[in-house]
Amino acid sequence: MERITATYYIETPYAVEKAAQVLAGEQSSGTFVAVPGETEALKQRFAARVEEIEELETVCEPAIPGAISPSGQYHRAMVRVSWSIENFGYNLPTMVSTLQGNLYEITQFTGLKLMDLEVPSSFAAHFSGPNFGIKGCRELTGVTKNRPLIGTIIKPSIGMSPEETAALVKTLAEAGIDFIKDDELMASSANSPFDKRVEAIMKVINEHADKTGKKVMYAFNISDEIDAMHRHYDKVLESGGTCAMMSINSVGLAGVKAICDRGELAIHAHRNGWGMLNRHPLLGIDFRAYQKIWRLAGVDQLHVNGIQNKFWESDDSVVNSIEACLTPLLGGYEVMPVVSSGQWGGQAPETYRRTSTTDLLYMAGGGIMAHPAGPAGGVRALQQAWEAAVNGLSVEEAAKEYEEFGLSVKKFGKK
Amino acid sequence: MERITATYYIETPYAVEKAAQVLAGEQSSGTFVAVPGETEALKQRFAARVEEIEELETVCEPAIPGAISPSGQYHRAMVRVSWSIENFGYNLPTMVSTLQGNLYEITQFTGLKLMDLEVPSSFAAHFSGPNFGIKGCRELTGVTKNRPLIGTIIKPSIGMSPEETAALVKTLAEAGIDFIKDDELMASSANSPFDKRVEAIMKVINEHADKTGKKVMYAFNISDEIDAMHRHYDKVLESGGTCAMMSINSVGLAGVKAICDRGELAIHAHRNGWGMLNRHPLLGIDFRAYQKIWRLAGVDQLHVNGIQNKFWESDDSVVNSIEACLTPLLGGYEVMPVVSSGQWGGQAPETYRRTSTTDLLYMAGGGIMAHPAGPAGGVRALQQAWEAAVNGLSVEEAAKEYEEFGLSVKKFGKK
Repeated sequence: MERITATYYIETPYAVEKAAQVLAGEQSSGTFVAVPGETEALKQRFAARVEEIEELETVCEPAIPGAISPSGQYHRAMVRVSWSIENFGYNLPTMVSTLQGNLYEITQFTGLKLMDLEVPSSFAAHFSGPNFGIKGCRELTGVTKNRPLIGTIIKPSIGMSPEETAALVKTLAEAGIDFIKDDELMASSANSPFDKRVEAIMKVINEHADKTGKKVMYAFNISDEIDAMHRHYDKVLESGGTCAMMSINSVGLAGVKAICDRGELAIHAHRNGWGMLNRHPLLGIDFRAYQKIWRLAGVDQLHVNGIQNKFWESDDSVVNSIEACLTPLLGGYEVMPVVSSGQWGGQAPETYRRTSTTDLLYMAGGGIMAHPAGPAGGVRALQQAWEAAVNGLSVEEAAKEYEEFGLSVKKFGKK
Repeated sequence: MERITATYYIETPYAVEKAAQVLAGEQSSGTFVAVPGETEALKQRFAARVEEIEELETVCEPAIPGAISPSGQYHRAMVRVSWSIENFGYNLPTMVSTLQGNLYEITQFTGLKLMDLEVPSSFAAHFSGPNFGIKGCRELTGVTKNRPLIGTIIKPSIGMSPEETAALVKTLAEAGIDFIKDDELMASSANSPFDKRVEAIMKVINEHADKTGKKVMYAFNISDEIDAMHRHYDKVLESGGTCAMMSINSVGLAGVKAICDRGELAIHAHRNGWGMLNRHPLLGIDFRAYQKIWRLAGVDQLHVNGIQNKFWESDDSVVNSIEACLTPLLGGYEVMPVVSSGQWGGQAPETYRRTSTTDLLYMAGGGIMAHPAGPAGGVRALQQAWEAAVNGLSVEEAAKEYEEFGLSVKKFGKK
């Protein structure tokens, strides 16, 4: 029978082997005393199995509160545990409850993080996955060249009227932008109701498309209750839009999948709240595991932060996230990594050097809007930054070669 | 204009005041450079506001990775921040993205936990909240006396056939149980498909109800994709069931609310995965804030762990959680705290001493099934434990007074 395997980074005051068995027991049969009916045959079929243990360092301070070690030592290890697909079938929420449920409460652990998961090939027949992916997003925006999609976020995040937003979209469209998104704080605010915003913005985008043949992809933030999300999705669709955005952690797995399953709009997945799930090195979930769950749910674009970002995350972690998104899952399920946070183009050479890919949605906010030559200059500068990156130029070399990018370096580069 | 207020426990290497302003900026307007359109009038209306700062201890080691302190000191504080209701209206997922979004990524923090939130009174007109609550759950189970609902979980968690489960339910119903639930690992497994399980179990429960007038509440785990949850909900309803269970973190806010909104079944909210969101003292969300979000979504019963539980959580924390659930929200939104994890009745006196309430769903697994006098003895013992608790008896006194509880103490009590 096919099995699902999860890899955990754990810390325990006890023998690693024993702690791993507690995890496997708790997540497949366990109560604190043996109960009738727990037969050997049943255990054989449904019990979680510890597949592999790789012992790592031992430390003297627990990472998070839990049982106190009698010896004062806390042992770290990578542990692989598997479950039969028979336990939960093709049910993502119950898979999550099994892989990421009560096990975080177990006192025998003073650290536990889900690092990765492997699903069996039969998943491919049950989860259609991203409907557009990288190829589809390139087609929808007409960006077939060897460069990332260049995108931006409407700022200020919240407060502008639909007309003000549409005027900004017009400026950006004329500047040659490929993609624009609502901020995650902006769904339907008092002075920018969702439908009015869609109407005002899509009028501009459709007119620009009629004139130039290029339709800017706008990710409207539909995050809300299910019925409202469906209504908003309909509105975007009937207005000629190509994309909807959801705050995936806030909406949740069942809601996001229901919307992805409609399959008519590309889905931009914003991972706000991610820090809560990942920022501690020994608690929560690693991006490698996280992105697989959301690809199975069917998102087409997924945030990965950016090189030299304004947040806490290291460049190494960002590079790992981009690579995770670009690694085929069950041979496909392609998702476009969304690079954002403090990006202005100066990070393009380093991003390309470390990932060798242009299959990205590269987002800059202030880097475009506050460019000395205006938004058109900002978009040009970003395109130049990526041309330079692909050609192996350094930031300094590119600044000499390209006028608009040179201005960006003067304004946004390290002083 | 009405405002929503959130209280955060923070740690920062910088001045607390400055870090608080970064949080407020990031969560209402922020990009890393000033952009056109960010007018004063707009800021006045939509900017988040730091309302109050209470400085706490200073420490020498950061709680989680972030900016390095030049002085080697990390300052902790309670910070209250408010947003105008105009920013996101009555949209729980976007409220969560605002209160629990990118702010966890901010490098200026080396610790950040959402401790509490206050919503304005207009929320009461937009969110109907729990459809049954404490009163409704008592009515559905016929438990009007001054004692908790006594419940149990089907164990082994996973592996039994519908017929085996139904046989166990029959035993438990005859033993006088009020409530039974699926384990969160059990939704629809290979040898216990959802519909078959509902049919087998409800046959037993309905027959018992016809005979005795008492309908046992069974929480069927409907956690799945939206369409499947609706189908499963229908199945429970048409079979005469009174309750559905969801793993709320795994299903997510939009999905859970859509199901709660149907209003015909009591909703049992399982919080598995909670440890990931809460186990670190300076990361994630405190239960006080968490339970308010789910009460607004409309769950009727919510897990709070138990006194002297088998997990890592302290008794103080459990007591705080019970109190949080029993504190009216906007004058109502009552939710029944579900006490579980290693409970066998011996914790009843201490639970009552510390909370002075019997408005609980008190869950015991092995404590009932492995009772020396069988499940009927186990249920009796739990009822006795609570009678003793309300009468102020200690465990030792109760063990002398009540035969079945005395047997529990011998088997499950501290050796």
